[in-house]
Amino acid sequence: MKNFPIAKSRRLRSTPYTDRIEAQGVSSYTVYNHMLLPASFKSLEADYQHLKNYVQVWDVAAERQVEISGKDSAKLVQLMTCRDLSKSKVGKCYYAPLIDNEGLLINDPIINKLAEDKWWLSIADSDVIFFAKGLAAGNNFEVEIKEPNVNILAVQGPLSNDLMSKLFGEKIKQLKFFNFSYFDFKNNKYFIARSGWSKQGGFEIYVENDKAGQDLYDYLFENGKEFNVRPGCPNLIERIEGALLSYGNDFDNRDNPFEANFDNFINLDSEVNFLGKDKLRKINQDGITRKLRGVKIDHNTIDMYCEKTLFDDNNNIVGYVRSAAYSPTFKQVVGIAMINKPYWNTKDQFKIEINEKIYVGTVCDLPFI
Amino acid sequence: MKNFPIAKSRRLRSTPYTDRIEAQGVSSYTVYNHMLLPASFKSLEADYQHLKNYVQVWDVAAERQVEISGKDSAKLVQLMTCRDLSKSKVGKCYYAPLIDNEGLLINDPIINKLAEDKWWLSIADSDVIFFAKGLAAGNNFEVEIKEPNVNILAVQGPLSNDLMSKLFGEKIKQLKFFNFSYFDFKNNKYFIARSGWSKQGGFEIYVENDKAGQDLYDYLFENGKEFNVRPGCPNLIERIEGALLSYGNDFDNRDNPFEANFDNFINLDSEVNFLGKDKLRKINQDGITRKLRGVKIDHNTIDMYCEKTLFDDNNNIVGYVRSAAYSPTFKQVVGIAMINKPYWNTKDQFKIEINEKIYVGTVCDLPFI
Repeated sequence: MKNFPIAKSRRLRSTPYTDRIEAQGVSSYTVYNHMLLPASFKSLEADYQHLKNYVQVWDVAAERQVEISGKDSAKLVQLMTCRDLSKSKVGKCYYAPLIDNEGLLINDPIINKLAEDKWWLSIADSDVIFFAKGLAAGNNFEVEIKEPNVNILAVQGPLSNDLMSKLFGEKIKQLKFFNFSYFDFKNNKYFIARSGWSKQGGFEIYVENDKAGQDLYDYLFENGKEFNVRPGCPNLIERIEGALLSYGNDFDNRDNPFEANFDNFINLDSEVNFLGKDKLRKINQDGITRKLRGVKIDHNTIDMYCEKTLFDDNNNIVGYVRSAAYSPTFKQVVGIAMINKPYWNTKDQFKIEINEKIYVGTVCDLPFI
Repeated sequence: MKNFPIAKSRRLRSTPYTDRIEAQGVSSYTVYNHMLLPASFKSLEADYQHLKNYVQVWDVAAERQVEISGKDSAKLVQLMTCRDLSKSKVGKCYYAPLIDNEGLLINDPIINKLAEDKWWLSIADSDVIFFAKGLAAGNNFEVEIKEPNVNILAVQGPLSNDLMSKLFGEKIKQLKFFNFSYFDFKNNKYFIARSGWSKQGGFEIYVENDKAGQDLYDYLFENGKEFNVRPGCPNLIERIEGALLSYGNDFDNRDNPFEANFDNFINLDSEVNFLGKDKLRKINQDGITRKLRGVKIDHNTIDMYCEKTLFDDNNNIVGYVRSAAYSPTFKQVVGIAMINKPYWNTKDQFKIEINEKIYVGTVCDLPFI
């Protein structure tokens, strides 16, 4: 695939860490929430191997926050998601699909409950803030909605506990998955969650002070030498293997949450009021006719810049692969695909054209690992 | 400025014309409405000179449409903009700032009125569809809201009348600025507006059939040889000189429409109901303390990837330049800047640091040309 430079502008926002990652050798960017998000450093495969063995520091400022606060904030946040948040607790993170009036997906943020009347939605790549503003205005909710100046640094990889405890103390090891708390370092207090866009374990540091974040960035690298720390970013291969779904890649506003395997986060029997509840009830009754599945393809390369069609022997459409990459672990291409019924069973076979040749693949369960 | 390749993925959507522009030598991309938008071909300056003298065909599919239809569609569209649309007519295009409940800008689309109950908002770079969906749900409006499969081809430049009339007939020359109508070519009907993101004159063809659009693209180049047609794209230099504002670059959701010089499109005395009306009345009464102005800087280069601060002799902040480029016409850097009162008068001077040196600039009127 030919390389095309990205034309920088204020509209594709830089982050407080951009100068640092460019000095460290970021080798490609994507754009995410109107912001630069690094996509590779040494190479997808070298980054992947390193992430699975050591520890990386990521500039994921592009995971923007939508802050919703005020008297009706809990009502508004609940209205946006099919996940029942009525028993949600301060200090916890909730992965939650956002749904529109048609029962279609708008985003899949992690919702951080900061207080009974203050929430941060840590969003995927769509303008959730305008959905929230529209809903709030239409419902006359008493809320304040804004994008705070929060620029996340993620520390990811099997050695992330070691690096983080060296800076923030042993007690950070007690932080449970999808919990957050506040930790001190050099007279600054940081909101830190045990979370992140990899399956290798790690933390996300929600930095509110740019200068403190830049200093912390440098300290992480100074203190991480003994753990072979490197700059990194969400890794395409690792996130596909771990089935960490990406809004805009694997699902979008034409898909419903059942098709995207969000069943565990759809609480149709709850008392709470959310958008699209009736539509989702009907979809649930009728049953879906396609869903996201894993695919393995017997080939060693694939370029993805739009979805690719999967066929059966009679050229019927089996589905569409939406994300894919060569996996050094499986020694073949792995991907996430929207597969039609009845082709969606594990081990069902299909064909796919890559660079004008036909290859064979099979449907499999997610995640791969 | 160092070049960084863009990491392509389904999330950064390709267009029906992507294969063609890549074969023709697109040399950089930006991302706009989650879609690839070409940013240069030969070079910014070569593209600029050509655009001002001949005719170009642009892949501006990234100007996505938000289609709002149904019984309450006019009410919803009006609610979103401070421009009075009560006397709007089918067949006309309306440039209209979208405003949130706080009186802040959300987008600046061209609103095409297709019927009394059907509208296409041809949007700048933010997810207006989710703002509309939120408002519709909150107000229980009877509307349908979707992003139709429309991929705009723009034909821009002083020879655009010649090229377009060669394909669509002489009557297309009668189409007035910011009007649209339907024109036939080879058994396909095309929605064509006299509009576009340049001040050189031209048309935007709202293509609904991918294959027909690709064929049309090829016909435009075949028939355009005698007019020295080339592929092109919205040109940074030309659009700054013409003061064609860019959401995310020159203004964003922290700015109000008075600050962004939208005074002619703010109808506070109208009877119509729109969001933020009371806030805008108050802003209007209190008066603004900063606004967008032109700036000229005595230097021959500038790299913009975030706003740059402007100072006076005592290091007080004069404002922030948000878009800028070297202009071959003015032989200096021209830009669009948010300038604080009282530094905003024409010919007021300021200082700016570019590549660690200090240069002098002056405030001027917009547009430059």
